[in-house]
Amino acid sequence: MKKELQELQTLDKEILLLAHTAALLGWDQETYMPTGALAERAEQISLLQGLIHQRIIDPRSRDFFAGLGAGEDNPAGSNDLSEIERAFVREAYRRYSRSIKIPQALVVEMAKTASMAQGVWIQARKESDFNLFKPHLEKLISLLRQMTECLGYSDSPYDPLLDEYEPWMTSREVEEVFSSLKQPLVALVQKIVEAKHKPDDSVLDTAFAEETQLKFNLLVLAAMGFEFERGRLDVSAHPFTTTLGASDIRLTTRYNEKFFPTSLFGTIHECGHGLYELGFGNDIKDSLLANAASLGIHESQSRLWENMVGRSRPFWKGFFPRLREYFPAALKNISGEQFYAAINTVKPSLIRVEADEVTYNLHIILRFELEKSLIKDELRVDDLPAAWKEKSGALLGITPATDAEGVLQDVHWSMGAFGYFPTYTLGNLYAAQFYASLCQQQPDTESEIEKGNLAPVLGWLRQHIHTHGAVYPAPELCRRVTGKKLDPGFFIEYLQRKYGELYGF
Amino acid sequence: MKKELQELQTLDKEILLLAHTAALLGWDQETYMPTGALAERAEQISLLQGLIHQRIIDPRSRDFFAGLGAGEDNPAGSNDLSEIERAFVREAYRRYSRSIKIPQALVVEMAKTASMAQGVWIQARKESDFNLFKPHLEKLISLLRQMTECLGYSDSPYDPLLDEYEPWMTSREVEEVFSSLKQPLVALVQKIVEAKHKPDDSVLDTAFAEETQLKFNLLVLAAMGFEFERGRLDVSAHPFTTTLGASDIRLTTRYNEKFFPTSLFGTIHECGHGLYELGFGNDIKDSLLANAASLGIHESQSRLWENMVGRSRPFWKGFFPRLREYFPAALKNISGEQFYAAINTVKPSLIRVEADEVTYNLHIILRFELEKSLIKDELRVDDLPAAWKEKSGALLGITPATDAEGVLQDVHWSMGAFGYFPTYTLGNLYAAQFYASLCQQQPDTESEIEKGNLAPVLGWLRQHIHTHGAVYPAPELCRRVTGKKLDPGFFIEYLQRKYGELYGF
Repeated sequence: MKKELQELQTLDKEILLLAHTAALLGWDQETYMPTGALAERAEQISLLQGLIHQRIIDPRSRDFFAGLGAGEDNPAGSNDLSEIERAFVREAYRRYSRSIKIPQALVVEMAKTASMAQGVWIQARKESDFNLFKPHLEKLISLLRQMTECLGYSDSPYDPLLDEYEPWMTSREVEEVFSSLKQPLVALVQKIVEAKHKPDDSVLDTAFAEETQLKFNLLVLAAMGFEFERGRLDVSAHPFTTTLGASDIRLTTRYNEKFFPTSLFGTIHECGHGLYELGFGNDIKDSLLANAASLGIHESQSRLWENMVGRSRPFWKGFFPRLREYFPAALKNISGEQFYAAINTVKPSLIRVEADEVTYNLHIILRFELEKSLIKDELRVDDLPAAWKEKSGALLGITPATDAEGVLQDVHWSMGAFGYFPTYTLGNLYAAQFYASLCQQQPDTESEIEKGNLAPVLGWLRQHIHTHGAVYPAPELCRRVTGKKLDPGFFIEYLQRKYGELYGF
Repeated sequence: MKKELQELQTLDKEILLLAHTAALLGWDQETYMPTGALAERAEQISLLQGLIHQRIIDPRSRDFFAGLGAGEDNPAGSNDLSEIERAFVREAYRRYSRSIKIPQALVVEMAKTASMAQGVWIQARKESDFNLFKPHLEKLISLLRQMTECLGYSDSPYDPLLDEYEPWMTSREVEEVFSSLKQPLVALVQKIVEAKHKPDDSVLDTAFAEETQLKFNLLVLAAMGFEFERGRLDVSAHPFTTTLGASDIRLTTRYNEKFFPTSLFGTIHECGHGLYELGFGNDIKDSLLANAASLGIHESQSRLWENMVGRSRPFWKGFFPRLREYFPAALKNISGEQFYAAINTVKPSLIRVEADEVTYNLHIILRFELEKSLIKDELRVDDLPAAWKEKSGALLGITPATDAEGVLQDVHWSMGAFGYFPTYTLGNLYAAQFYASLCQQQPDTESEIEKGNLAPVLGWLRQHIHTHGAVYPAPELCRRVTGKKLDPGFFIEYLQRKYGELYGF
């Protein structure tokens, strides 16, 4: 093997170990850490991030990449490398070149500004006062624009931001996909709102003990194929999945005794992410290829399990009888069919994280359009709250009365994470397209799910998606898996079929 | 402030943050980590230890110490520094000079040999076969001898090993202390064994639900003054305390539903360690002075709380009525006095970690004498099992039938930790001497403990011991706190009074 490749792999291995260690610091902070430890924990994380950054921009890398024939025009390097080696060089070069393009002073100012902005955002949301947050958002956008200039772009300054989360995809491509999604979605929501037949979700208004919810969650995790000797499920304020090692994937969920779907679907969603991380092939373990192809692909795994599987009729044919064993009193007078309808209620609402799978994507389109305009200087921060309200009315048919329920509801912008939101909807679209291929290639999948056997789902995802990690860029992975480029038609068709039947049109 | 001092402090702060991060990796491994993560966790810990070592031996330090006037003959540096600055320089120089004296190749070989030896020791203990372990122990001792030559010594090669755990104390001093302890202890055990009146410990032979044990443990921790916003209590196979940050001290205990004292006294013991770590003064926080003066002093804190307080009559006068509220059925027919006697049963036994507070120190004297002879080449590893049996008979009056119950019972030697054992008994001796001073200076302490008020104990320890951290070497701290050098008379008197009364002589 080429010496330069070995050197890069040694650096990458250290980065991986440090990143997993930093992830433990983060996981512990959200789960078990005593509150008084917060200040020093921030210093610990910041030191680790510094050590990681040092290794990413290690000045010797320049020569390593040169020796491997890798550069801006040929990020994957020389043709004598194997396919996986070329993918490794491509991803390592991408990480390196993004990092060296941004001056250290700008990185530090961005981190400080975002840290301050997050604190102010919490306060502003509490007081529902956008004006408090405004100057910080303006500063963040100005720094992000500087970053886009450092990173460079040929079409839109939004591209290099999007590229951080959804590499190898441009904002023009996202625009095209979203624009063919928008009208069918708005029309579908309209039909649902006007439907005479509506499921009764009041059947869920009953108490479910947390302890029993946990037991059922563990049963579902086991059925999904989550390996407990390689991971855990804990509790945190906001559910998340984090990777502390190739065989150490930690999921969290949260419990609401009065609304049982919160913890279960949170658990299934996070397990979808976790199974991806647990499924990277042995040939890419311990390297930066043991990573998602993109955030959109990562989200496709959580959404496929949460929605296509977890909120499906076949799933509840298999699992409702078991759920009733856990909650005999609460579910005494409810049929599996009533339960299935109740957990699939659609209703336009103001808060993204509480939205159903139909309206959810309208929340995302709203944010994508606004953040793109902000970065392109086509929208002033002053005008943002009004623009939010206007778009909310146009897309969802409802308008927030306060900033807290509107423009201040999400943490992302306060962290400087512009370009992140679209990956949620890309995830839904990839999920529908993957699930269509899965059901086409394995026609008995849903009848197995009805029996409570989820192994065919995991088996297919492992083989076609998980094992490859970041070897293929997301668009290429999509074509390899489904034979087509990303096509929102699969998602629209999935929704129309499912909800047409539930709402009787 | 001198620039060199600032530079040393910057390095020290990074070492501290990395050490706390490594401690989190260790804590998580013992508490929540899934089993499959073990191999990568070892790599993560080893990487962090490497980063710490790099900073300890940072070549710039040589000039920093020179600029501060610090060296072998004057480790605390120049007199224009403040008392705390001089203590900082002294401890930093001690850490640096120990580290640079040992060649990197020897450090690596020691780590590899110890890692291998621990694996073999587990197997050897399981099979009770010393011969399996023998070659590894021989190799370890040979490497330790090389280390003592690198570190240098004027009297005994055991000194530089002891110095790792009990700095500023020589093996000759330990020998003197132990030799005036040995005969009175053997005589006391003899009296107890021959006593006609014996407490009845069968009253503890009843089931105590783990959940309720935990609740009572938390009550005792709160009474001791443990701050839950700065620490936690979890479960692990072997109880320990670890510091993950100045305000992040984690305790663990283990539960035995059939023998309730295991978890409670484990918890009190670890909390004694934890309160020390939580009590370092604000002027030394965030530096290597936020550390125990020595392992003996650390153990004095755990033992003072566990034995002088937790196994005392005043304590159970205060807490037995509460304990009975938690376990009404199990304790229905037992009086507080019966309970107090039962938890203070003395009986020579083979296993150190299960020993009572009287016989415990004979186990330590046995190990100290053997390990000193091994390092001084006065005892061959071949002859170790026989020597163990002989000493066990002489000191404890009983002889192990197997190696598992004898020479193979402890992990320490397999880790290369020679010089560690004496700190356990030094801890008991310091504890008795401190506790005598405490009761003399605050005569109403025990009557407050009878009321369940433990604040006077913590208050005194905070003021006289905790706040100073490693500012004073242990022998100096002892003189400052008690007006005398370490004197085993206090411990002997404490035992004779307590057990004379319990056993009626």
